[in-house]
Amino acid sequence: MQKFGGTSVGDPDRIREVADHVARCLRRGDQVVLVVSAMGKETDELLRLADEVSRTKPGREMDMLITGGERKACALVAMALSDLGVESESFTGSQAGFLTDTTHRDAKILEVNPHRITEALNAGKVPVVGGSQGVSTSNDVTFFGRGGSDTTAVALAHALDADACELYTDVPGVFTTDPRMVPSARKLDQISFDELLEMTATGCPKPAMRSVELARSYGVRLHVRSAFSWVPGTWVAKEAIVENAIVTAVTLDTSEAKMTVTGVSDRPGVAASLFRTLAGSGVNVDMIVQNVSAEGATDISFTLPHEQVAIATPVVESLLADVGASAAVMDTAIARVSLIGAGMQTNPGVAATMFETLAGAEINIEMISTSAIRISCVVREARAEEAVAALHDAFELDKDPADRRLV
Amino acid sequence: MQKFGGTSVGDPDRIREVADHVARCLRRGDQVVLVVSAMGKETDELLRLADEVSRTKPGREMDMLITGGERKACALVAMALSDLGVESESFTGSQAGFLTDTTHRDAKILEVNPHRITEALNAGKVPVVGGSQGVSTSNDVTFFGRGGSDTTAVALAHALDADACELYTDVPGVFTTDPRMVPSARKLDQISFDELLEMTATGCPKPAMRSVELARSYGVRLHVRSAFSWVPGTWVAKEAIVENAIVTAVTLDTSEAKMTVTGVSDRPGVAASLFRTLAGSGVNVDMIVQNVSAEGATDISFTLPHEQVAIATPVVESLLADVGASAAVMDTAIARVSLIGAGMQTNPGVAATMFETLAGAEINIEMISTSAIRISCVVREARAEEAVAALHDAFELDKDPADRRLV
Repeated sequence: MQKFGGTSVGDPDRIREVADHVARCLRRGDQVVLVVSAMGKETDELLRLADEVSRTKPGREMDMLITGGERKACALVAMALSDLGVESESFTGSQAGFLTDTTHRDAKILEVNPHRITEALNAGKVPVVGGSQGVSTSNDVTFFGRGGSDTTAVALAHALDADACELYTDVPGVFTTDPRMVPSARKLDQISFDELLEMTATGCPKPAMRSVELARSYGVRLHVRSAFSWVPGTWVAKEAIVENAIVTAVTLDTSEAKMTVTGVSDRPGVAASLFRTLAGSGVNVDMIVQNVSAEGATDISFTLPHEQVAIATPVVESLLADVGASAAVMDTAIARVSLIGAGMQTNPGVAATMFETLAGAEINIEMISTSAIRISCVVREARAEEAVAALHDAFELDKDPADRRLV
Repeated sequence: MQKFGGTSVGDPDRIREVADHVARCLRRGDQVVLVVSAMGKETDELLRLADEVSRTKPGREMDMLITGGERKACALVAMALSDLGVESESFTGSQAGFLTDTTHRDAKILEVNPHRITEALNAGKVPVVGGSQGVSTSNDVTFFGRGGSDTTAVALAHALDADACELYTDVPGVFTTDPRMVPSARKLDQISFDELLEMTATGCPKPAMRSVELARSYGVRLHVRSAFSWVPGTWVAKEAIVENAIVTAVTLDTSEAKMTVTGVSDRPGVAASLFRTLAGSGVNVDMIVQNVSAEGATDISFTLPHEQVAIATPVVESLLADVGASAAVMDTAIARVSLIGAGMQTNPGVAATMFETLAGAEINIEMISTSAIRISCVVREARAEEAVAALHDAFELDKDPADRRLV
């Protein structure tokens, strides 16, 4: 199973390069199934076109429109393969057997019945499947959402019992942090599902989180690698982490804003009613911090995606009186810096080193949240890249784990 | 049944205008089913993209690629309808029930089972169907070829027993000749299927010939009209031609070239072997003229589409010795001017007037062919527009038929 992202099929030359790559895999004796995303910026262009045509944009019609991008790409890849003498057939999500629920724009897979893919493989053909799409129980075209091609690849790899699911992208693998930001960032040879999940949840853009969750559930071996080289990328597996580092990576997430509600009555149930109402409005609250109470009132801060600020603000303002609060302050200039690593579970010193490092760089920590394998700090957005670089350096992530001093 | 061509859905504004038009028809009490073509130049762009990616361009993959154009347009039209409060659903050819043979790029309809269209209509929704596409007996996406959306509309109108099939295009109807060429060209209120077929076969670009043939077979009433006004266009019906003109229209076809094979042995079977071989190579020979024999040898001229010249030339050259011919000469600077009219069947003077008119304009006639309701002359391409204008004038096609003098 090989999945090629939008950049990898971004223009005719790139499409021919994908075909060359597949032809070489076949000569090596591999059996290959391809999943492709829409070309380059195609999905954005279709969304823009829909915006120009319609205000209401019904989900059913949006899915019919958007899935055309992947469908176009898979037909073109099949044509390029044909030029190399490789017999190939393109398949829409429906033809590939992806049955979904009827939630348009964000459909969930109910079943994968890939008998046409199996038939094509048995006939010696390379199936090329349009990513992120299926057919609903009402027989309508459905879209899995942005990044859904990774989900298609993982689900199909499981259904076909493939040896591995290779996600070809425009980066060579998963890094200790974003190499555009910290040039000494090191490519990880292996990572666990849990660590990768924490990374994608806190700013690592690839692969799509949902596909990693699915791969973990089904035990599908993932290989995140570059579409532009034969160098192995990063393998993702259940537990078999040879590289037993304490800290694996640092991530940066600038997609969230912070809202602080001040002077909230310090009574039981007040915070609950605030967050229950926000959840009911579809707002994804992430980190929550409540200050120590002073004179019967407290401040509550939470983070939420930038694009939900417009929904959350009126909801919170309408609740101010009910929760006895004095004001709600929105702050969009924050960033979340996270340290990820399975080894943290048994190394309590990690948090201390993290806080000391940020203090040493005179970067103020505004909020803290932790999981078993992650510590996140909210800092000023303007200082965030500096914080990432300082942490990457402090934990010696540029070095091979064996060469690092213990924290 | 209303079909909108590529120009009518060429950009977001046009798409909203189509939706406005449909909403007004609904207010008038009509039940409407839409068929749409791909937006503007989309099909050309997809073809160019395929050329850039692939030399082999397998038919199955080309159809998967090209049909995306109509699918995109029908989703956008459905969205625009939703903005106006009109409930609507887009359908691919497959969803609309178009079952075809497996001839990719030029699939033939085997059956139309429009139960999803009927269900949508019964639920008070406006179905919007992607034109020129279906699903083959092998469950692959198929394309009916350029102009196939007209065919979709006619076939669906028949399957649904629609009152009429309205073909909305960028011209207000069928004209006595191309109004861009002859400003006094008159829009025809009505025309017979036979006349329209002869017109489309000899250069009138709209509607697509195949759809007219289908409408004639099924007795579907066609209405060719402008997408940009409420003025009625041209009705096409079986026989009920109120307007009993002798000559209905003049057409110009510049899509053909002429090949002349000189010095062919004047023996039985020689011409037959030439044309049988050409037909076997897929060349569509149209007009054929054989000169009077002189000294046991003769010249044979025939016309063929410009794009088949490259196929035909080597075929003919390889046959020169067999048919005892001396040379084959290709002439691409010709045009065919045709006079169409059901009244010609009983008016032998028409041909004489045509030849006299061209002679009067000093335009040389190189080939002649006739049918019961058509006379065609091949002339120099450079003189062709002049020939059309002279004939349009001579037969007074700018006047109402009642006001014309008899030929």
